[in-house]
Amino acid sequence: MIKVGIVGGTGYTGVELLRLLARHPEVHVEAITSRSEAGMGVADMYPNLRGHYDDLAFSVPDADRLGRCDAVFFATPHGVAHALAGELLDKGTRVIDLSADFRLRDAEEWAEWYGQPHGAPQLLHEAVYGLPEMNRETIRQARLVAVPGCYPTAVQLGLIPLLEAGLIDVEHLIADCKSGVTGAGRSAKVPSLMAEASESMKAYGAAGHRHLPEIRQGLGDAANQPVGLTFVPHLTPMIRGIHATLYGRLTVEPGDLQALFEDRFTNEPFVDVMPAGSHPETRSVKGANLCRLAVHRPGKGDTVVVLSVIDNLVKGASGQAIQNLNLMFGFAENAGLEAPAMMP
Amino acid sequence: MIKVGIVGGTGYTGVELLRLLARHPEVHVEAITSRSEAGMGVADMYPNLRGHYDDLAFSVPDADRLGRCDAVFFATPHGVAHALAGELLDKGTRVIDLSADFRLRDAEEWAEWYGQPHGAPQLLHEAVYGLPEMNRETIRQARLVAVPGCYPTAVQLGLIPLLEAGLIDVEHLIADCKSGVTGAGRSAKVPSLMAEASESMKAYGAAGHRHLPEIRQGLGDAANQPVGLTFVPHLTPMIRGIHATLYGRLTVEPGDLQALFEDRFTNEPFVDVMPAGSHPETRSVKGANLCRLAVHRPGKGDTVVVLSVIDNLVKGASGQAIQNLNLMFGFAENAGLEAPAMMP
Amino acid sequence: MIKVGIVGGTGYTGVELLRLLARHPEVHVEAITSRSEAGMGVADMYPNLRGHYDDLAFSVPDADRLGRCDAVFFATPHGVAHALAGELLDKGTRVIDLSADFRLRDAEEWAEWYGQPHGAPQLLHEAVYGLPEMNRETIRQARLVAVPGCYPTAVQLGLIPLLEAGLIDVEHLIADCKSGVTGAGRSAKVPSLMAEASESMKAYGAAGHRHLPEIRQGLGDAANQPVGLTFVPHLTPMIRGIHATLYGRLTVEPGDLQALFEDRFTNEPFVDVMPAGSHPETRSVKGANLCRLAVHRPGKGDTVVVLSVIDNLVKGASGQAIQNLNLMFGFAENAGLEAPAMMP
Amino acid sequence: MIKVGIVGGTGYTGVELLRLLARHPEVHVEAITSRSEAGMGVADMYPNLRGHYDDLAFSVPDADRLGRCDAVFFATPHGVAHALAGELLDKGTRVIDLSADFRLRDAEEWAEWYGQPHGAPQLLHEAVYGLPEMNRETIRQARLVAVPGCYPTAVQLGLIPLLEAGLIDVEHLIADCKSGVTGAGRSAKVPSLMAEASESMKAYGAAGHRHLPEIRQGLGDAANQPVGLTFVPHLTPMIRGIHATLYGRLTVEPGDLQALFEDRFTNEPFVDVMPAGSHPETRSVKGANLCRLAVHRPGKGDTVVVLSVIDNLVKGASGQAIQNLNLMFGFAENAGLEAPAMMP
Repeated sequence: MIKVGIVGGTGYTGVELLRLLARHPEVHVEAITSRSEAGMGVADMYPNLRGHYDDLAFSVPDADRLGRCDAVFFATPHGVAHALAGELLDKGTRVIDLSADFRLRDAEEWAEWYGQPHGAPQLLHEAVYGLPEMNRETIRQARLVAVPGCYPTAVQLGLIPLLEAGLIDVEHLIADCKSGVTGAGRSAKVPSLMAEASESMKAYGAAGHRHLPEIRQGLGDAANQPVGLTFVPHLTPMIRGIHATLYGRLTVEPGDLQALFEDRFTNEPFVDVMPAGSHPETRSVKGANLCRLAVHRPGKGDTVVVLSVIDNLVKGASGQAIQNLNLMFGFAENAGLEAPAMMP
Repeated sequence: MIKVGIVGGTGYTGVELLRLLARHPEVHVEAITSRSEAGMGVADMYPNLRGHYDDLAFSVPDADRLGRCDAVFFATPHGVAHALAGELLDKGTRVIDLSADFRLRDAEEWAEWYGQPHGAPQLLHEAVYGLPEMNRETIRQARLVAVPGCYPTAVQLGLIPLLEAGLIDVEHLIADCKSGVTGAGRSAKVPSLMAEASESMKAYGAAGHRHLPEIRQGLGDAANQPVGLTFVPHLTPMIRGIHATLYGRLTVEPGDLQALFEDRFTNEPFVDVMPAGSHPETRSVKGANLCRLAVHRPGKGDTVVVLSVIDNLVKGASGQAIQNLNLMFGFAENAGLEAPAMMP
Repeated sequence: MIKVGIVGGTGYTGVELLRLLARHPEVHVEAITSRSEAGMGVADMYPNLRGHYDDLAFSVPDADRLGRCDAVFFATPHGVAHALAGELLDKGTRVIDLSADFRLRDAEEWAEWYGQPHGAPQLLHEAVYGLPEMNRETIRQARLVAVPGCYPTAVQLGLIPLLEAGLIDVEHLIADCKSGVTGAGRSAKVPSLMAEASESMKAYGAAGHRHLPEIRQGLGDAANQPVGLTFVPHLTPMIRGIHATLYGRLTVEPGDLQALFEDRFTNEPFVDVMPAGSHPETRSVKGANLCRLAVHRPGKGDTVVVLSVIDNLVKGASGQAIQNLNLMFGFAENAGLEAPAMMP
Repeated sequence: MIKVGIVGGTGYTGVELLRLLARHPEVHVEAITSRSEAGMGVADMYPNLRGHYDDLAFSVPDADRLGRCDAVFFATPHGVAHALAGELLDKGTRVIDLSADFRLRDAEEWAEWYGQPHGAPQLLHEAVYGLPEMNRETIRQARLVAVPGCYPTAVQLGLIPLLEAGLIDVEHLIADCKSGVTGAGRSAKVPSLMAEASESMKAYGAAGHRHLPEIRQGLGDAANQPVGLTFVPHLTPMIRGIHATLYGRLTVEPGDLQALFEDRFTNEPFVDVMPAGSHPETRSVKGANLCRLAVHRPGKGDTVVVLSVIDNLVKGASGQAIQNLNLMFGFAENAGLEAPAMMP
């Protein structure tokens, strides 16, 4: 059993960490912090946890206490991990950051998209981008992991096979993404009210969303060259789930696309290539650490369409964070992540 | 006051015709037919209509009775209008067909997509495609109008300005479309159950959907040349609404895209070009005969993104059918269609 | 045409007033106020209104400007109408208050439930409780109308026939009520987020809800004696609608309950007694100024069950406010309120 | 490891058994039957199970094969277990029936409510009603268990403490119950379509629902005398969950109701009495084998209100079935049932 801490546990990725870790055989949650809710029991805020963490209450962040943990998850707004990660690493605590703080390798680019200077550029050289399907071996050795964003996970997993194989025009990739409302977090904002967000669909951030540079960086790694990407996220009236619909123009005759995808992910425990002709549903991964994919070539034309679904809170956040933890500590990669998705 | 009939009124487009026509100052609904429900009062099936059509019951389709109407709407599965339209036209009754029967000009193409021979090829020469924003003057003279499909309406209105202006690569258009569940109709199918369709998002028909040839035909008219289109529809967990996200690659420097859209639709009563930077929500047109559009050019790159929303049952079906009727009979174009959308 | 003003128009009852008044033949909206949004066009906040009120913007409340209106609606939190109503009445402007300020006849009781002194007790003697089915003639003469709350409307309409007829035990009435999320208003609160409120059902205020004294007062009027009521509201995952399930114990053999209800409401344009055995759905009144009722006597026992549905924003608020306005100004009672409910 | 079979596994309780049993340490699913889907892999019908039961396909029911299982679950329409249970018991296979076939002790009453003769009256003497909170010790010895219905579970757990303590009028109990749409099963019916059932609330079966006699029987056991009950179920626009709101009239001064409930369930692993003043949400038990309760006495009057929530597919069906299995086979009572509810 290792001891873990969670910084900023009041949001949806925080409670999802607790839900999943409750069934993890190797992990004990030692501390969970929240300045605003310090003193409140976690089960008082999240009644689904009653009976599971009855002795655990939110506490004020305390580097000493967190530093006694083997690993600390950051489930915080951007900037917080910048401030604390270095001190924890110095104490020998490994850091798994679910925020955007260490996802971009370029501190300048980070500063531009987040509107503030990067707070820990000196750590960037050792931050590992925690997409196991790309970086599994590096993750095993990492002290500091940047867990990918939800959209970036769904988009990268869907496009990696095509980019690695060099089959599509890398300058004109399109990612049309649909996210459930938990993607907007738990903060009280009018557009997130049920009376506003249900029974409707809208795009947002069409001019440029903060996940764009992260996705471009990841796709560029897979393509081994810079890529051009149009990324349009949409708010969808459901609680959980991301559906990424990805379009690429074939530049060469691609051969068997189904086989390409199956081969690429044949050893991946958390990527499921569906049978040819499938249309994966987001509900088929609800609550599970899975990405399900299908690849189509409509009318045998020169456009390939990839359908990629994840649960934004699991494979898109907390589940993937635990998958990284498992790799970093040598646990079974699926420890705590074995339960099937909940359907219906 | 004219007399109208509705053939096949038990589905969602039928009840929507009744809802809208209840407030139409020039129209009396004389007959509504349904073989399976003959004898049942419309308000017994649709309690929202209690107090509005208390003397109207479904009746067995009867060409004589329908032939005494000035106009007949077909809100039927494909094939039915083929069988009846000719006889009604011969009696001097104008036909407004909400089904797909007369949308494609090419009977062979129709037969291929619908898996049966075209049942009335002799009428195709006079069938007018009922998109007022393209064919208003022809509609005014028409005896037989094919009301556009829901996806085709949203996609065409969003792309017409770009195609007419010759700004984008016509061979690689992409329409990523999201529809509420009424798009699947009122038939009892497991995938349409609330327990299956809510809290989830999925694509369908990625290999080829029946609306594809219709959209291609309409876009080809706007472009004045054949177009290539990838069209991926998605089932979205909401009752009403279509959100079309449209991608085109600019082939020339486009100038002011916002002005292009505003100019194209400046006289259109049912197309609303939103201010620059907007993201229209489907709920903003719920129940209303409107298409709201926004045009974006992310990162000032070479991809233009158009966001187009309609209510699939109104501008995408019954409202547009009434708009056609108004044009055909010289009524105010917005008669019966003046009410604002319902929000929240 | 009369001129009306709306104070506090940014909430859901405000936009619903605008939606309905857009089709009212006798009303021009002269002013709509909001301190926080002064200067913003109403269609910028509520895009469904684009094309309907393009010259109308929120303005700072100004008693002179409002005083030039024939009538002013208050769609405000409690306390605001207390402060302004007297001044407007003095200027000859009639006041239709959608808030709770003038619903209770007893200023002490008001103060107790709302936690502050009643701000205008001197106006209580002339405030009329705006339930037309009880007070139609008084409303016609009123200068100041208190529009009933949403729960009180649904509950009273369902129980009035039984209480007036003296059939049930008045000391042990039960009202189990289910409301859509717009009942909680448009303020940004975590429990109203879609991620919190959808896919769940919960009771609230079981210990005592502010609508309780209002309902008790109204039911007491119908019973002509004080009543005892247990009222449990529930938050239901839908946007609009209230379903009140009402339980009364029969103290005498009741005769034909169906006829009792039909007779009581036979001349009521906005109460629809459904056929015996019916179960009204909230969606059957969505967007419409209607209460639909059904009465059951399970197993021919001594408990009578009434099912009562309204749209909380229409018959439960803005529609009923307009119905009151129509009575006060001698318009057709259904002016602006003729459209059928929207279904599906 | 024991071997279990599932008869009629295509419905929602069937897939929920599979979801939960996938994580049960002592159970292997040997067979799952469906006449209509024989030959189809379970993961082809329920993609959430891909990776979990890849070798399991639906098969035609076969008594020999089922008879080689240690236990068989029936997740079937009524009547099926009548026909098969006896034969399986003769082979030494224990039977856990999720249908209504063995819930009523009185075969005549069963016949009356289900409109057909009871098919196995000779087995009734040994059928145990599988509510562990009432019959735990009997269940341990049972060969044939009738798993309680969903509504009966929520209602009984909420009223048992009051009835056992003799505090309330047993002749006038009221259960106002709200169920998610999975309660209607997976059959394709128009009223269950998302376009019909979402964004609406309605009562059904007010005249008499099949769960009524079952609830009355159970409550009568707790009260040790016959009870009178008014039971009104409502269809609620959510996938899972039952919220029972229960009303009883106090006949004696009750003392500390909170303590009464806490004491009654203090040793119950799957009943959670919430703190005084709570309002449990159905989502707090989503996916979990739990009943959460709160007890209120509004205004210190003579009406007690109990709020009781369960997941209809788990504590209301498949989870409770597994809890019974665990008792019958001497496993830990919570084996396979340890995961927290999923929230949000």
